[in-house]
Amino acid sequence: MKFATISLEEKILVGIVDENGIVPLNDAEEKRTGRRPYAEDLVTCMEQEDFLNNVRSLIHWIEEQNDQANFYIPMEKVKFLAPIPRPRKNIFCVGKNYVEHAIEMGSKEDIPKHVMVFTKAPTTVIGHLNDVLEHKEVTEQLDYEGELAVVIGKRGKGIEKEKALDYIFGYTILNDITARDLQKKHKQFFIGKSLDTSAPMGPWIVTSDSITDPNSLNITTTVNGEVRQQSNTTHFIFPIEEVISVLSKGMTLEPGDIIATGTPAGVGKGFNPPRFLKAGDTIEISVEGIGTLINKVARDK
Amino acid sequence: MKFATISLEEKILVGIVDENGIVPLNDAEEKRTGRRPYAEDLVTCMEQEDFLNNVRSLIHWIEEQNDQANFYIPMEKVKFLAPIPRPRKNIFCVGKNYVEHAIEMGSKEDIPKHVMVFTKAPTTVIGHLNDVLEHKEVTEQLDYEGELAVVIGKRGKGIEKEKALDYIFGYTILNDITARDLQKKHKQFFIGKSLDTSAPMGPWIVTSDSITDPNSLNITTTVNGEVRQQSNTTHFIFPIEEVISVLSKGMTLEPGDIIATGTPAGVGKGFNPPRFLKAGDTIEISVEGIGTLINKVARDK
Repeated sequence: MKFATISLEEKILVGIVDENGIVPLNDAEEKRTGRRPYAEDLVTCMEQEDFLNNVRSLIHWIEEQNDQANFYIPMEKVKFLAPIPRPRKNIFCVGKNYVEHAIEMGSKEDIPKHVMVFTKAPTTVIGHLNDVLEHKEVTEQLDYEGELAVVIGKRGKGIEKEKALDYIFGYTILNDITARDLQKKHKQFFIGKSLDTSAPMGPWIVTSDSITDPNSLNITTTVNGEVRQQSNTTHFIFPIEEVISVLSKGMTLEPGDIIATGTPAGVGKGFNPPRFLKAGDTIEISVEGIGTLINKVARDK
Repeated sequence: MKFATISLEEKILVGIVDENGIVPLNDAEEKRTGRRPYAEDLVTCMEQEDFLNNVRSLIHWIEEQNDQANFYIPMEKVKFLAPIPRPRKNIFCVGKNYVEHAIEMGSKEDIPKHVMVFTKAPTTVIGHLNDVLEHKEVTEQLDYEGELAVVIGKRGKGIEKEKALDYIFGYTILNDITARDLQKKHKQFFIGKSLDTSAPMGPWIVTSDSITDPNSLNITTTVNGEVRQQSNTTHFIFPIEEVISVLSKGMTLEPGDIIATGTPAGVGKGFNPPRFLKAGDTIEISVEGIGTLINKVARDK
């Protein structure tokens, strides 16, 4: 299943997505039971008992209806928000999790021996087809980073690698937009990673049962149609199980936590000369089994 | 004024504190107006219109009552939570903001030229008199860091230094508990800074009108009564105005954001041999004009 958060006629709604469009959960459930039991906030939904089972039963019921088509809203009629528009804490990001990217950022010395994690503020988050601000007054080196992101669905601490995948609600795509000059200047990555609009996310979350092996997914980033990053998550230095295990050693993970798993080689800074983003550029990130996240860079207002 | 969040008979309440005890806001307002208009969440209160003025008028009214004493709950009857028990994003922390501390962590090379910011997860937060877990399975180098913390009260971006103090709701004390071995091992500080219970905060927030100059406050940390850190915020490398200005360049600050301003020299790692925390240790951090935050290190359950 694919879960999206959309904006439609001024309302924020949680819905499921397939090739026919989007079904807002509460609208459909109201037709079935007369009730609107779901929160319009996907993290709260994750915390509701039997959420996934209820949605599965709803989908099954819709499939049996003669007027199935009436349940769907066409994609082009809605505005996508990020599937989790306002995370309840910073986004966790794994740094330098692909060998070739670690090298392009410096040298072989930069290949990490242990999981490295920094964070992005919740104010960075925007949805599919929303604009990334250029931040011209603040940075001259805005860069893209296409990444697979993991969304935690279950509270846990001290999670063993062998059980780590059970804690995942699903997967989405995240563009870890980075101001390279600020990242370097301020040493710790947080400031260079936390400009407003610097975490495009979506278009939706694919539930974990739809992804056989998250450590084996093709990932491609294009800028204005030109392929810049092309890799596979099989090249992770630290696979997802290990990242979850390390993060949860002493720190409780919670439903709705987002972990961006790192970016492969091919970021703008890796080129000689570097190829940073400018207003008008379109970035598309595709991850196998999830979809494509598209955002444009816009001049500051 | 001093705002605290307390737990009393299973309820979470926001109250004001003075030498007579604690006055839960809604209980007092109910006696005055029959209504309970305040959120029991201090950040939501900050967002309510005229919050501070309403509380001031309430205090004034209480002072005129003959049964003033009946409004107060004695401090010893309540359990303190952190004034913001669950921040809506990670806590922002300034790294190495005192020269002598930067040197004790390495050498003069470690004195930062630009503001350095890392974060702590919201799951780290505990209140005054709550226990810091030892996390023995995860770290052998648990350390204390006494700090003045700033609480933002007003939304802003691109805030000029000259106006930065206007964005502050108040000040509190934060113990930036750090697992030194993890901090070193994982390079970016986040993991070593984010163990559960590693951000004792409180006991309360003192509103900004009560502090004449936040860049000139004595700060002292003791462990089991022995003075370990003793300094004054006048020794900040980056004063509060500059930290707010740098952080808000391109990143929107919001009510309830917490900025820990860095710790002076005298952390456990700075001693030779190092003096890390162990179960049973009591850490007391006092900041002039605010109060004293006391926490004990406890064995893991």
